[in-house]
Amino acid sequence: MKIAVIGNGHIGAGLGRAWAKAGHGVTFGSRDPGGEELRAMCQELGASAAPVAEAARGAEVVALAVPYGALDGVLQAAGDLAGKVVIDCTNAVEAGMRLKYGGATSAAEELQKRLPGAKVFKSFNAQGAENLTDPVYGGVPATNFFCGDDAAGRAVVKRLVEDVGFDAVDAGPLSSARYVEPLMLLWVTASRALGTRDVAFKLLRR
Amino acid sequence: MKIAVIGNGHIGAGLGRAWAKAGHGVTFGSRDPGGEELRAMCQELGASAAPVAEAARGAEVVALAVPYGALDGVLQAAGDLAGKVVIDCTNAVEAGMRLKYGGATSAAEELQKRLPGAKVFKSFNAQGAENLTDPVYGGVPATNFFCGDDAAGRAVVKRLVEDVGFDAVDAGPLSSARYVEPLMLLWVTASRALGTRDVAFKLLRR
Repeated sequence: MKIAVIGNGHIGAGLGRAWAKAGHGVTFGSRDPGGEELRAMCQELGASAAPVAEAARGAEVVALAVPYGALDGVLQAAGDLAGKVVIDCTNAVEAGMRLKYGGATSAAEELQKRLPGAKVFKSFNAQGAENLTDPVYGGVPATNFFCGDDAAGRAVVKRLVEDVGFDAVDAGPLSSARYVEPLMLLWVTASRALGTRDVAFKLLRR
Repeated sequence: MKIAVIGNGHIGAGLGRAWAKAGHGVTFGSRDPGGEELRAMCQELGASAAPVAEAARGAEVVALAVPYGALDGVLQAAGDLAGKVVIDCTNAVEAGMRLKYGGATSAAEELQKRLPGAKVFKSFNAQGAENLTDPVYGGVPATNFFCGDDAAGRAVVKRLVEDVGFDAVDAGPLSSARYVEPLMLLWVTASRALGTRDVAFKLLRR
């Protein structure tokens, strides 16, 4: 699958690394695709780097792994994302650890309004980047929830979640992002309380 | 410990059963403390039943395990709860699976405002009642998050969570209820998607 990972910070790099390892064609979309560090990473992973619009244009899946504050600029740069699976990994968190959206909407639903032709999914928002490298805890793969409205897209996203090594749990329609997005802050709170970033959620089943 | 469990539906009964088994003195607070079913349960558990005010008056811990719509009546009936540990197990969910509160407040914080002298904690809101009977999945105890502001109270709540058989994770101040409360809807969504109520959250640690 051709995947554009927009953003090459901890989360973007972790996703790109995992997906390249799983055999996908990964292109990092960046404002500075020729940057030294990014080039070295691409070489290591067998990935490539391109300006955001070019990376997005050639991709079936676009993962938005940028700080929420950078999202407007990225969407402007990306061009038309209609028909593509767009995975929103962002966290719309404001000062005081407050979610910008909640209750009757979510950041992912707001994104879908801005990209009416795209197949928006929420996922990969509620873990530390460490979990992308090693999501298995004592033999138990951590759970990564995903949600979105497109039937064909959800099979794609499920597989991409599993390709990272997670247990993929389908949390239903995109409106479930109202419940998936707060998980990030629960992760942060629990991580701080326990004094370690090596924590992850699991949905236990019998 | 003397515990008043207000409400004897699935959650209240599950909590009362677990705590009585753990050796606590459990009194169910009810509008109808002489009801047949409640009396039978009390006899089975070695618990007692009393009007809400009487149950609360004699208790160090008050667990509110009633539908959110019944909360106003319960608070009116309960009388002064100052100095007591109050565990808010409610879910303030409105039509369309929307949380009434989110973002900059939570149902638990709103409750604390109404009970300024009480030590309000949020817990036991994000599971099916089945999990209260058997919270262990293949040897792994499910996690129950709790949060609140009172230092002495949090040791009490931690123990009561563990007495049910859960792995207790301290999610910090009461304001973390903003992240703990949405878990219920994620539980419902995942439970529906997977077609079973035998699901529970776990916070994995290495």
